[in-house]
Amino acid sequence: MAEPARMTGVLSPVVTPFKKDLSPDVARWIRHCKWLISQNCGLAVFGTNSEANSLSVDERIEMLEKLGASGIDPKMMMPGTGCCAIPDSVKLTKAAVKLGVGGVLMLPPFYYKGVSDDGLFAAFSEVIQRVGDARLKVYLYHIPPVANVPISLPLIARLIKAYPGTVAGIKDSSGDWKNTEAMLKEFPGWGVFSGNELVLLEVMKLNGAGCISATANINPGAIHKLFANWQSPEAPKLQEQMNDLRLAVSKFPVIPALKQTVADHLDDPAWATVRPPLTALTQEQITGLRAALKDRGFTMPGLREIALQPAE
Amino acid sequence: MAEPARMTGVLSPVVTPFKKDLSPDVARWIRHCKWLISQNCGLAVFGTNSEANSLSVDERIEMLEKLGASGIDPKMMMPGTGCCAIPDSVKLTKAAVKLGVGGVLMLPPFYYKGVSDDGLFAAFSEVIQRVGDARLKVYLYHIPPVANVPISLPLIARLIKAYPGTVAGIKDSSGDWKNTEAMLKEFPGWGVFSGNELVLLEVMKLNGAGCISATANINPGAIHKLFANWQSPEAPKLQEQMNDLRLAVSKFPVIPALKQTVADHLDDPAWATVRPPLTALTQEQITGLRAALKDRGFTMPGLREIALQPAE
Repeated sequence: MAEPARMTGVLSPVVTPFKKDLSPDVARWIRHCKWLISQNCGLAVFGTNSEANSLSVDERIEMLEKLGASGIDPKMMMPGTGCCAIPDSVKLTKAAVKLGVGGVLMLPPFYYKGVSDDGLFAAFSEVIQRVGDARLKVYLYHIPPVANVPISLPLIARLIKAYPGTVAGIKDSSGDWKNTEAMLKEFPGWGVFSGNELVLLEVMKLNGAGCISATANINPGAIHKLFANWQSPEAPKLQEQMNDLRLAVSKFPVIPALKQTVADHLDDPAWATVRPPLTALTQEQITGLRAALKDRGFTMPGLREIALQPAE
Repeated sequence: MAEPARMTGVLSPVVTPFKKDLSPDVARWIRHCKWLISQNCGLAVFGTNSEANSLSVDERIEMLEKLGASGIDPKMMMPGTGCCAIPDSVKLTKAAVKLGVGGVLMLPPFYYKGVSDDGLFAAFSEVIQRVGDARLKVYLYHIPPVANVPISLPLIARLIKAYPGTVAGIKDSSGDWKNTEAMLKEFPGWGVFSGNELVLLEVMKLNGAGCISATANINPGAIHKLFANWQSPEAPKLQEQMNDLRLAVSKFPVIPALKQTVADHLDDPAWATVRPPLTALTQEQITGLRAALKDRGFTMPGLREIALQPAE
């Protein structure tokens, strides 16, 4: 069997702006998506950093349809579609496949803890079989610090064997390089993305697919530059600069920090809104974040040039 | 302000039977609910043991409407309505209140971990305000071993103060008696339910509301007997017998063990089906469970006498 096509590059778990009534602000969201695309950054919409699990499935489907109508190439999209309940994951995944997305990023069902690999295999199988579409490309989403339901190497091997070409890769948000390295070595040429850019150079050296990183919401150009130039002599320097920014931002609660940064760079305070249970940054945190970014000469080139168009 | 009415007694997080295609088997479910009611046991449908988070919101609403049409007094119902996304919790809570339920059991949004009390207060507030119905009685659901998002004593105090009469109680599934005791002492007369029957006598001595226990799915009569007779001399003995059964069942994965037991006592193997990511008991576990129950002379009195009526 031929090696299945895989998505590659840098993707952003796109942050989701909200209106005052906490409904998704689709116009601002699509504007941000368009800017990310202009920076060669793919759209992992509905990720952890997107507050996706704070959105109902219907909200996500409505947003996805509007994103599909925006003119952005759906092959650049990898929406998160994994929910606790199989019917929800099926509904969302079907909507994504219908749109022609490059892949979907699938959390395991994350309410029950300590479940077996047999149980997780059955859960992923049900979704894949019920979607029943040859176009489906599933990227598993391993994020034990948040989901608390890990995806083990033996489970991955079993899923790849059962659904070759469909189970196309993984995002490893364990934050554990040893685990990412093991995936890259055990499944060579498979679509392994690191969950942050701190190890992007190492991922590329082991023929990984790229990274899907929170910070790509604000620093996509620099991260893509390393992705595109990882074999050049300047790569270690690019990696170092990226890491410095990432680590500075990581000192703050990351989702509100990203949204605050977009708000600041657009002079658009509405962008800072988060949905409970998250909370916005305190004034002290905002001051600290701004100073850290200013010290590093941080900019978001071209952001203001993207037109805000009514989406509804 | 007068002390708000509170639900009291023994409630069961009702297990959810599934058909072969994994859709909810509403007829079998309502039959089980009717048996529980016949044993003086309230219906905490859509709890953890109900595999509620493996059901979509629409599935839960459809089931709830059918349960409402079954003739069972809705005041005996405390459906779980807490989801990760505020719109989902609002939709489900509204459906429950419309039915006239005695209360709802509300998980905190459980995807994001390490969230602040401010964030959780805002999340519960949004749901309560959006439901906006004076009939609403919220029982908070503290289950850190599964949700991994604890509900702290200061958060409870704040919610009671902000929504007196609405925030009516809590189910403490921490498994930590010190925590349950602290709730009972800090909020005297408030609706504190322990999450199991092992401490029911102690809960009653401190003027608690009762217990909501997995084992009430199969042993409701005995648990209710202690609830009704906690001041009698035989109470410690009743507690001891109940605990023996609970601890025997707890040696097995609890949800499949409960369903297997119902299946066995109805000679109805279909009852044993679980939704992934859960898995059914192994044959060895089934044999061990049956032996443990037989050793204890365990029965489910009256179960077979409840008629199975088509629900659809």
